[in-house]
Amino acid sequence: MIAEVCQQPEALERTLAGAIRRADAFRKLLAKRKPRLVVLVARGTSDNAALFGRYLIEITTGIPVSLAAPSISTLYEARLDYRDSLVVALSQSGESTDTNLVLERARAQGALTLGITNERSSTLAKLAEHVFLVRAGKEKSVAATKTYTGQLLLLYLLAYALGGGVRFSDLQRIPEAVEAALGLAPEIEALSERYRFMRHAVVVGRGLNYANAFEFGLKLMETCYVVAERFSSADFLHGPIALVEPSFPVFAFAPPDRTWPSILETLKKLQHLRAEIVTITDSGNREAPDHATRVIRLPRRLKEALTPIPYIVPGQLFAGYLAAQKGLDPDSPRTLHKVTLTL
Amino acid sequence: MIAEVCQQPEALERTLAGAIRRADAFRKLLAKRKPRLVVLVARGTSDNAALFGRYLIEITTGIPVSLAAPSISTLYEARLDYRDSLVVALSQSGESTDTNLVLERARAQGALTLGITNERSSTLAKLAEHVFLVRAGKEKSVAATKTYTGQLLLLYLLAYALGGGVRFSDLQRIPEAVEAALGLAPEIEALSERYRFMRHAVVVGRGLNYANAFEFGLKLMETCYVVAERFSSADFLHGPIALVEPSFPVFAFAPPDRTWPSILETLKKLQHLRAEIVTITDSGNREAPDHATRVIRLPRRLKEALTPIPYIVPGQLFAGYLAAQKGLDPDSPRTLHKVTLTL
Repeated sequence: MIAEVCQQPEALERTLAGAIRRADAFRKLLAKRKPRLVVLVARGTSDNAALFGRYLIEITTGIPVSLAAPSISTLYEARLDYRDSLVVALSQSGESTDTNLVLERARAQGALTLGITNERSSTLAKLAEHVFLVRAGKEKSVAATKTYTGQLLLLYLLAYALGGGVRFSDLQRIPEAVEAALGLAPEIEALSERYRFMRHAVVVGRGLNYANAFEFGLKLMETCYVVAERFSSADFLHGPIALVEPSFPVFAFAPPDRTWPSILETLKKLQHLRAEIVTITDSGNREAPDHATRVIRLPRRLKEALTPIPYIVPGQLFAGYLAAQKGLDPDSPRTLHKVTLTL
Repeated sequence: MIAEVCQQPEALERTLAGAIRRADAFRKLLAKRKPRLVVLVARGTSDNAALFGRYLIEITTGIPVSLAAPSISTLYEARLDYRDSLVVALSQSGESTDTNLVLERARAQGALTLGITNERSSTLAKLAEHVFLVRAGKEKSVAATKTYTGQLLLLYLLAYALGGGVRFSDLQRIPEAVEAALGLAPEIEALSERYRFMRHAVVVGRGLNYANAFEFGLKLMETCYVVAERFSSADFLHGPIALVEPSFPVFAFAPPDRTWPSILETLKKLQHLRAEIVTITDSGNREAPDHATRVIRLPRRLKEALTPIPYIVPGQLFAGYLAAQKGLDPDSPRTLHKVTLTL
């Protein structure tokens, strides 16, 4: 897992270089046939990437996005009116049965379809009219890492293709920001010892980093067996904050962007409750250290829209090192296989 | 809380009787101006009701539904293209700042708007072009119960108004099914003792009962301070099941409908892992007792689409009694107030 986390700068560069031309062509096609709705369908880590895509596409293009509930097609066999829609399936393996079924039915109904996958010759790559490839190389660890960030990167290109104001020159800076985040590895490894006996936790994020809260929480569940709840900082205040007692661990994604006032309000409440707060932020956020028990600070100050990929890196490292602290093997969590088939 | 749980049959009857005419009028209006997208916006318990609405509307009408992410409007100030959309805000108090802001902006952009609230003279009731009222009487407990089931009932009427095949005669049978579920109170009170020291749990549901998994989990968090994760049975298999060790408590909504094969597959895996399984089902499900540590069985067999309201009742009772077992006051959870204001 840690080895694959460290492959991310290269994987991201390769993925971006390999997809720019395709994104340009797709943008031209979409300019003629602008979808009124974007539907994202996925499971597991890919579904967390979809959650990021939801925010990015709505924020940058104004086109409404719906995160599909696969059972509505697979179990209830409802026929959704996806005319004038773009249906995007995300799957590392391209072999998720339910995800593929939703895409196949949508295509049969006349929806434009796009597959985002790590496997060029997968079922998904064949079913979808258009394909964006994550070029991360084979992912061996059951806990997905480099394919998640690859999917996020391709979602920027999708937002671009949909007419959103995304610059390639900005995206080209992401691999070096990830490289810089990887430099935090020794610090994060040392920090992980403190959480050796942690059994449950809450992870909060908001806006473009909300998906990272889901993804970091999933990594804590899969690799460390920590019962990790995931909330937007706003939803957290609507009930679940009642959980928090002194020393209760809360991890927060806290970029110095327009979500910060909302995150800060939550952190202040948590400080009052004497929670254990770990924030993931960057050097541009000067207030963060005053509102946390421990701070993980990325060295580079990042543009607001570019934080999500570098910000998940400390979470991936933390989960990998904490698993080691707990004597667990993050590459082969109990009960799980790399490809899960559900309907 | 328990008193308000027990008021539900009357509150539901009142809500239904008071809204049928309005639903009929709304159906006529929507027949002339059929929305291409339904957007549901809410926080907390109301957001769980919205999750139910998402499944019900897509299944019964085929119109795509998007669950709004309020921060996209409130923090990022994106202008979403909600032309030809119906935007529905759900709020017990009608005073949720972010929910109201999303609705107000959508209306200004020309979207059709509907408010679903318990408060006739609230801000939401004034902002929305159309209003469906939950007539549950004042809800005093911080943990929402009767307003949740009232919102679910009005979402059936919304699905009807959108052209879905929902029969009033079916809805009229829901209050008696809830009354029958309330008869389980002594059994559930006795059962709650077993979970006195439970600190974390997982709640699973799927399809029309997926929202109940979220709502029961939220009640366990708010009133019992149990770290309760919520998953669809499919998503649970995509990673989080790694959490499960012998005696790990998992609660499952298990109606004998088309979600049962998927739930059953999950329960079998959980049995193999020697989890503690509590299923909420009804007398129509004969297989359930073979795949659970404890079964809560509603006495009446229910039509598939009608299970969600009666099925949450055992969850509400369980949370209320478990709070009492733990020496907590479910009406006034620590840290929370009845109305939470977020942006």
